[in-house]
Amino acid sequence: MTTLGILGAGQLGRMLALAGTPLGLRFRFLDPTPDSPAGQLAPQIAGDYEDSQTMETFAAGLDVVTYEFENVPVESARWLAERVPVYPLPQALETAQDRLREKTLFQQLGIPVPPFAAVDSREDLERAAGQIGLPAVLKTRRFGYDGKGQFVLRAEADIDAAWQTLGGRPLLLEGFVSFEREVSVLAVRGRSGETAFYPLVENHHAGGILRLSLAPAPGLMDALQAEAQRIAMRVLETLDYVGVLAIELFEEKGRLLANEMAPRVHNSGHWTIEGAETSQFENHLRAILGLPLGETAALGHSAMWNLIGTLPDREALLSISHAHLHLYGKSPRPGRKLGHVTLRADDATTLEVGNARMRSLLTTEESG
Amino acid sequence: MTTLGILGAGQLGRMLALAGTPLGLRFRFLDPTPDSPAGQLAPQIAGDYEDSQTMETFAAGLDVVTYEFENVPVESARWLAERVPVYPLPQALETAQDRLREKTLFQQLGIPVPPFAAVDSREDLERAAGQIGLPAVLKTRRFGYDGKGQFVLRAEADIDAAWQTLGGRPLLLEGFVSFEREVSVLAVRGRSGETAFYPLVENHHAGGILRLSLAPAPGLMDALQAEAQRIAMRVLETLDYVGVLAIELFEEKGRLLANEMAPRVHNSGHWTIEGAETSQFENHLRAILGLPLGETAALGHSAMWNLIGTLPDREALLSISHAHLHLYGKSPRPGRKLGHVTLRADDATTLEVGNARMRSLLTTEESG
Repeated sequence: MTTLGILGAGQLGRMLALAGTPLGLRFRFLDPTPDSPAGQLAPQIAGDYEDSQTMETFAAGLDVVTYEFENVPVESARWLAERVPVYPLPQALETAQDRLREKTLFQQLGIPVPPFAAVDSREDLERAAGQIGLPAVLKTRRFGYDGKGQFVLRAEADIDAAWQTLGGRPLLLEGFVSFEREVSVLAVRGRSGETAFYPLVENHHAGGILRLSLAPAPGLMDALQAEAQRIAMRVLETLDYVGVLAIELFEEKGRLLANEMAPRVHNSGHWTIEGAETSQFENHLRAILGLPLGETAALGHSAMWNLIGTLPDREALLSISHAHLHLYGKSPRPGRKLGHVTLRADDATTLEVGNARMRSLLTTEESG
Repeated sequence: MTTLGILGAGQLGRMLALAGTPLGLRFRFLDPTPDSPAGQLAPQIAGDYEDSQTMETFAAGLDVVTYEFENVPVESARWLAERVPVYPLPQALETAQDRLREKTLFQQLGIPVPPFAAVDSREDLERAAGQIGLPAVLKTRRFGYDGKGQFVLRAEADIDAAWQTLGGRPLLLEGFVSFEREVSVLAVRGRSGETAFYPLVENHHAGGILRLSLAPAPGLMDALQAEAQRIAMRVLETLDYVGVLAIELFEEKGRLLANEMAPRVHNSGHWTIEGAETSQFENHLRAILGLPLGETAALGHSAMWNLIGTLPDREALLSISHAHLHLYGKSPRPGRKLGHVTLRADDATTLEVGNARMRSLLTTEESG
């Protein structure tokens, strides 16, 4: 019997456990919050990632460890890696946790990125704004997610407010890219070096939070897919990466700029549960266990809608043709990801009928 | 939060929990065997169905109860039904537990069945053999599964041995039907009376155990599907049935004879996880919760292979194109269902390539 340890017990962990149970795997989660989404399905240790006793208990008897949350302290991941195989390697976690390190890596690998500069003081910020030009986005280097820890500077007059809001932490200023759309590539690499790539996904955000992913990205051309795979391949190989890696990209006049990466399964890959031959969750598990990777081909067309803050009526959701509901077992709270719905259809026209129903249901919710 | 109680914690319960978790449901299982397949995913009470203290503990706070195992004592189901909604109704359980009651119901509803007679004594057996003719099958009325509790009589000389093997329990003699194939229909009926039917499945047994289901049944004609649905509809309505019902049928010269029914999700419906718009597991849960039923259309062609007794190499299974592995968390033992593999493909030719690989893998296993 193989037991996997997962750091973090949120919805990504929950979906990993749902995908791994049929493979005969058992799971153990570590997360400070009791009765987390994954802890409802498998044993969860509710403790701190930096508490050595907790970590000892967590690690005992595990066959392999992975993360479903990238803000795990790198030191904890390194400590674990001395005792049990940890995938992706802690160096991938370390890179993804720090926007400066991440952007620098992309740049070193010849992957186009928006202009950026490190900001550690108000003087740095003024200098960077002058070099990069405005508008630009000031971001914390660490612990940002769902648009948190970001400040958009539209004119020099915004520098004061931006510094007051975010100053005092390591920061990064990024130039605005007038991109046509945001896409993401989900890549997976096994322990043997085998790789596979899902079709590019088109992502739509609102308020910094992913709302909708369309897969494959509408109008996806082979050249764009190939370019995204080349980008992902360079990162996978440089980091000796094992598992699923997500890279968010900006598409600008047919070229791709790297925005950020996540060293784990990713929200923009949830559509793969119904919409691909093998889900991102199963492929992450296959990869870290050294099993052959599953096929990544899309099955028709999918749209993944996040359910954020409040839940629409369950009956209404379940009455939508081709809708697949995924709830995470979380209590409603503004801005919280509570679940998602994937619509999967053989043709884009059928999909659009479902999308129209979802759009109206979610609009009613938000105004209600 | 909705908590479902499930009597039995085998693989069917495990797959119900895997399907219900994304719907936001929580589960509690009751099964005498600790660490059963479903108990690895959700709280399991390891106790007896007839122990009143156990039943009290199990029932406390549940929203609805169902079975994943039909040999639950009917009295226990009735006791529960006085405290919490139980679906399917205990009367369906009672009917399905007794081959005589089941066959009599089919007959009363005008559903063709093989000739049969109740056998309670050796004299009954002789008389029945004379009336029905040989070959015929002597079966226990209760607790038979996977071909257990059956004796094939080919000539009068077999009567002695048959009686010595099975005599002393309530029995049934059934005439042999020279059918062309066995098919099954999976039907589902909601609390509101809404019904849905999956495409007929063709089933292949060996040693009394299901080995392979092909879905939809090859060469399936609309008329046969309609006939199966008419049969299932009569049973659903008569029993005021709620949930998934499986009926095994013999196809003989274009007509259908009812063999037996199962008041639960069924092995011949496992293909629906990947091969249908909504799985039998999700639809059973939707039905018993009074939620709208999901679509039952097949997605391409599926073949479900049972893994029995021993497990083929996991890597070999996972390297088969279009193969989806489902392990039940059970230890190998001769004749035991340990898991299944569903191959799903858009066309029958691709499916056949996978089937050939499965066949060779399973043959190697059995001779190894």
